[in-house]
Amino acid sequence: MIATDHKASLKGGEFLIKETDASQVFIPEEFSEEQQMIAATCREFLEREIWTRLDEIDQAKSPDLIASLMDKAGELGLLGTSVPEEYGGFGMNFNTSMLVTEVTGAGHSFSVALSAHTGIGTLPIVYYGNDDQKSKYLPKLATGEWKAAYCLTEPDSGSDANSGKTKAKLTEDGKHYVINGQKMWITNGGFADLFIVFAKIDDGSGQPDKNLSAFIIEKDFGGITMNEPEHKMGIKGSDTRQIFFNDCKVPVENLLSTRGNGFKIAVNILNIGRIKLGVAAVGGSKEVINNAIRYANERKQFNTLISSFGAIKHKLAEMAVKVYACETACYRAGQNIDDLIETLKANGLGDSEAKLKALEQFAIECAMMKVHGSEALDYVVDEGVQVYGGMGYSADAPMDRAYRDARINRIFEGTNEINRMLTVDMILKRTMKGELDLMGPAMAVSKEIMSIPDFSADEEEVLFAAEKKVLRNLKKAILMVAGAAVQKLMTKLSDEQEILMNLADMVIELYVAESVLLRVEKLTGLKGESSVALQKDLALVYLHEAVEKVNNAGRAAISSFAEGDELRVMLMGLKRFTKIEPLNLKDTRRRIADAMIAENKYIF
Amino acid sequence: MIATDHKASLKGGEFLIKETDASQVFIPEEFSEEQQMIAATCREFLEREIWTRLDEIDQAKSPDLIASLMDKAGELGLLGTSVPEEYGGFGMNFNTSMLVTEVTGAGHSFSVALSAHTGIGTLPIVYYGNDDQKSKYLPKLATGEWKAAYCLTEPDSGSDANSGKTKAKLTEDGKHYVINGQKMWITNGGFADLFIVFAKIDDGSGQPDKNLSAFIIEKDFGGITMNEPEHKMGIKGSDTRQIFFNDCKVPVENLLSTRGNGFKIAVNILNIGRIKLGVAAVGGSKEVINNAIRYANERKQFNTLISSFGAIKHKLAEMAVKVYACETACYRAGQNIDDLIETLKANGLGDSEAKLKALEQFAIECAMMKVHGSEALDYVVDEGVQVYGGMGYSADAPMDRAYRDARINRIFEGTNEINRMLTVDMILKRTMKGELDLMGPAMAVSKEIMSIPDFSADEEEVLFAAEKKVLRNLKKAILMVAGAAVQKLMTKLSDEQEILMNLADMVIELYVAESVLLRVEKLTGLKGESSVALQKDLALVYLHEAVEKVNNAGRAAISSFAEGDELRVMLMGLKRFTKIEPLNLKDTRRRIADAMIAENKYIF
Ligand SMILES: Cc1cc2nc3c(=O)[nH]c(=O)nc-3n(C[C@H](O)[C@H](O)[C@H](O)COP(=O)(O)OP(=O)(O)OC[C@H]3O[C@@H](n4cnc5c(N)ncnc54)[C@H](O)[C@@H]3O)c2cc1C
Ligand SMILES: Cc1cc2nc3c(=O)[nH]c(=O)nc-3n(C[C@H](O)[C@H](O)[C@H](O)COP(=O)(O)OP(=O)(O)OC[C@H]3O[C@@H](n4cnc5c(N)ncnc54)[C@H](O)[C@@H]3O)c2cc1C
Repeated sequence: MIATDHKASLKGGEFLIKETDASQVFIPEEFSEEQQMIAATCREFLEREIWTRLDEIDQAKSPDLIASLMDKAGELGLLGTSVPEEYGGFGMNFNTSMLVTEVTGAGHSFSVALSAHTGIGTLPIVYYGNDDQKSKYLPKLATGEWKAAYCLTEPDSGSDANSGKTKAKLTEDGKHYVINGQKMWITNGGFADLFIVFAKIDDGSGQPDKNLSAFIIEKDFGGITMNEPEHKMGIKGSDTRQIFFNDCKVPVENLLSTRGNGFKIAVNILNIGRIKLGVAAVGGSKEVINNAIRYANERKQFNTLISSFGAIKHKLAEMAVKVYACETACYRAGQNIDDLIETLKANGLGDSEAKLKALEQFAIECAMMKVHGSEALDYVVDEGVQVYGGMGYSADAPMDRAYRDARINRIFEGTNEINRMLTVDMILKRTMKGELDLMGPAMAVSKEIMSIPDFSADEEEVLFAAEKKVLRNLKKAILMVAGAAVQKLMTKLSDEQEILMNLADMVIELYVAESVLLRVEKLTGLKGESSVALQKDLALVYLHEAVEKVNNAGRAAISSFAEGDELRVMLMGLKRFTKIEPLNLKDTRRRIADAMIAENKYIF
Repeated sequence: MIATDHKASLKGGEFLIKETDASQVFIPEEFSEEQQMIAATCREFLEREIWTRLDEIDQAKSPDLIASLMDKAGELGLLGTSVPEEYGGFGMNFNTSMLVTEVTGAGHSFSVALSAHTGIGTLPIVYYGNDDQKSKYLPKLATGEWKAAYCLTEPDSGSDANSGKTKAKLTEDGKHYVINGQKMWITNGGFADLFIVFAKIDDGSGQPDKNLSAFIIEKDFGGITMNEPEHKMGIKGSDTRQIFFNDCKVPVENLLSTRGNGFKIAVNILNIGRIKLGVAAVGGSKEVINNAIRYANERKQFNTLISSFGAIKHKLAEMAVKVYACETACYRAGQNIDDLIETLKANGLGDSEAKLKALEQFAIECAMMKVHGSEALDYVVDEGVQVYGGMGYSADAPMDRAYRDARINRIFEGTNEINRMLTVDMILKRTMKGELDLMGPAMAVSKEIMSIPDFSADEEEVLFAAEKKVLRNLKKAILMVAGAAVQKLMTKLSDEQEILMNLADMVIELYVAESVLLRVEKLTGLKGESSVALQKDLALVYLHEAVEKVNNAGRAAISSFAEGDELRVMLMGLKRFTKIEPLNLKDTRRRIADAMIAENKYIF
């Protein structure tokens, strides 16, 4: 075993300017036996209780079925993973809860119900509840005796979550808040016993607060009505409601955290939701890949198994590359979060506070993984449908559901547009605040592009030396483009969303490419080069694709704000920084596909 | 008016090596008043009969509703567009029938039923029927008194259509064929009165034919049973069946064309189906774009109409660019087909024969437009969902249906993988046969890449001189890669499907980019430069994206078969041939989007 030194890991966003040592990253191969057993339990649960009745779940006329499945999950302990032990949960660390989320992510509608309950439904109390609130509610939520929903979105308030109109008016005796308003798209709404509700307090001064506050509302408080479940493209078994609060009377003790802190709660809880959505997409993707491989290994056309066709191998390999890379980056970030929690706790911070601070520190990575995971999944299901041909379009085969269910992930927990912009926005804000030193390195790059390229002899013969140089160059490309964009557009940059999108794409690709390379480097150290040849293939394909994407996005960005000489110099700089030795990607992908085809499943 | 000289147009596939004069292409702006009235009639029909009951159509428990809508379409004459007048139809030329297909392409399930009837259901008789067959069946099909289905696919025979197991056994008295077998995925199966059925004749010699034959089978011949309608991801109102032929007795007169000619019939009819699918996708896309613009012009977040956000403008413009380009290429090819039909008829060929020959000549373009149209549509619906945010996932808003319905188009009429490979395959076969002279130009290019680039002064100041040079270079890029691939891999190329896919992508992008540039050039001549500024924007965005795609696909191809010096020389050649002056695509897209946002609809 190589000694791991997670604690020296970088701050959120720092991957842009610093290198990470492979010893510092956590890789999924390091999950302990106990963690693997937990994963196996989750998987067995899906196999036994969920996959056997996917149609039934989606066609259910009432939410009773999905609620009863939640009960069963609760009996097994699946609902208490992130609830501290003192409140009846298991208090697992972050990456273990990520692992649970990954595996259960293949549960279609059930996954959504599960993560709404355990994530956005329960975590606000875990992180922001006071002792009374925790003692009162968490034990019930951890077992599933009570089920939770999260009510943030309103008809006129989606991406702009802080603009909600729901009001909380203090009663004259100061003992209650009376909630009035309308919430929309509320997952688990139909059977929830407890609602985390965001509203603006109006204490009678006439003007409601500018910021949201969060409330814990029991269904039995009364004044809660709802519409029939929404009809949706997919996750049809997940109960989604419009909910009306009509003079719903909430004891003041049920204000969560402090007045006006609701938006912050919402944002921080969504952070967790985002990276978990990313890793859930990995779990969903793996199942789709398994199905695609199995089908391709059964279906013959032209007297040939379609898995023998290059066109199909290409798809299978691409699916695997994207998912392997996404998985890698998710757990890398997850471990960073765990490590920081430990460090902060060692420095005296309380549990919740440490967790919140750590999650905030890695909010950039959380947003990135939401985007990456949901888009990897959409790629996988789309090609999954295609591998099945006509059967891909049939409701009697698995791809139809996978395709429809996947599509929600680019929309909820913040649309991917919002998360892309957040990614860049957070990076720039940290830079402005001096928390992230992009300016220095960006200046160095802008000098470098004016100088003659360095043709000096190549680096020492260390593992992945060439690829690491590529990564360093990608960082330079990003610094060059981001630096110039900021300098040129200043405060106007936020109106140039197209450029923000380009930058986000560049940053995401870099982060994931670096992650997957670090994983394989570490793995090589653990297992020896010959036994990780396929993993190296995965990493190289990802890296090459990332370089292409960074190049394309970089060019789009540069030509959107630069002109004349500046344009030309930067395009040349970009070319220099996105150089990579050509590789026969076809053969590389075929090796990846062939290995999976031989085993008849996703094997990485 | 500029004189148009369509007749000088190129042969199928020749766009790869020759230039087309703008005067030679047909552009949609040239549709006559009569054609526009026909289009308006179709549109009114959709508005009145279809869009008012989309839910009803998709939820119908029996095929009666869709069949009755076909009756109404028949009353209006929509079913007889391609049936010759002497058989009760309108005998419209090809591009007029394309226009009808485009407009009705926005009819969701109804479009599919309509085009299965008028296309693959009716056209085999139009093109291959003898006089008796035509007189007997076409008048009924042209009015919709009878409805038709097309039975090619079987459970074990999809992409490999010629491998079907359905048998046709001649009776001892030689008067009938007895059909036995199972067909699958048969559109309109549940209410069709007539089936075009492909089967292999077994005349008692023990061994069935190697090739399919085609039969016209009336439902009343008996021996036909079917399963319940398939449950599908989308086009739920389109009736899709598994059909069983059990000793179905067909008079020998109902053999279509000659024994063993069935596969050829299937292929040629699919040719038409493919380009029509492409243009139907254009019609579907425009409706989705309209909805997306309208929604973006209504929905506010952050106190701002979301149509004001750059991220949304980017999507709207991209949708328009792809669809405008696809439309352009579809009608360009359509007119080529019409022109060749005229020429061939003038040279003495019969109507059907002329049409078939013309369609065969442009089979490459038909396959390309199938791929391009279906992928443009999938892009459009995907971004359409995204523009709607959460409402994009709701079955109560239009994007859910659009998204699900669109997905079939990459699967049927030959999967896009099959059509991509066919595109390249047909080009190479014609080259081998000497019908297409790729070799000469390819040799010239391979010399050129070994020589010093030509830095001579730029061309004369003619319209789009720079862009035309880009197109010429793209052709060189394709010739370089295709030529080298053929030389290097020879007969092994067909096993290297990934490279075929790359080549197909390059060819398709070139064809569409050239088409859209020619359209705008012609339009400039007709209307003056200032009134087509936006169209120029559309063309330039498309061209830039095409160059990027050709570059990416080219690199993938080259590094899949070349090594060492050859690899390096070709990559340099590719770089040279995919050079394009940078353009601020963001601003260009914003102009396109802003114009549509101002008009609240797709306006090109
Ligand atoms: C099935 C489902 C389950 C859900 N579950 C829950 C739940 O349990 N609890 C809950 O509170 N909510 C839930 N939601 C709501 C979900 O979080 C929102 O739908 C999502 O945040 C998007 O908001 P919106 O639908 O209002 O879209 P909008 O915000 O209206 O977005 C429409 C489009 O505009 C874009 N856009 C918006 N603002 C900007 C901007 N500033 N710049 C550029 N583009 C912008 C978006 O990216 C999107 O493309 C759920 C939604 C669905 C569909
Ligand atoms: C809703 C619907 C309506 C339809 N309507 C009709 C109809 O009216 N009449 C009719 O006859 N048929 C109809 N079809 C059938 C349709 O044409 C076939 O589904 C289609 O041709 C694909 O065949 P398949 O489903 O057998 O897929 P397969 O051929 O099994 O293909 C599976 C996968 O393998 C790939 N593949 C296959 N061969 C190769 C190869 N040589 N190289 C590389 N990749 C390969 C495909 O691209 C695909 O990705 C319909 C299908 C559907 C779903």
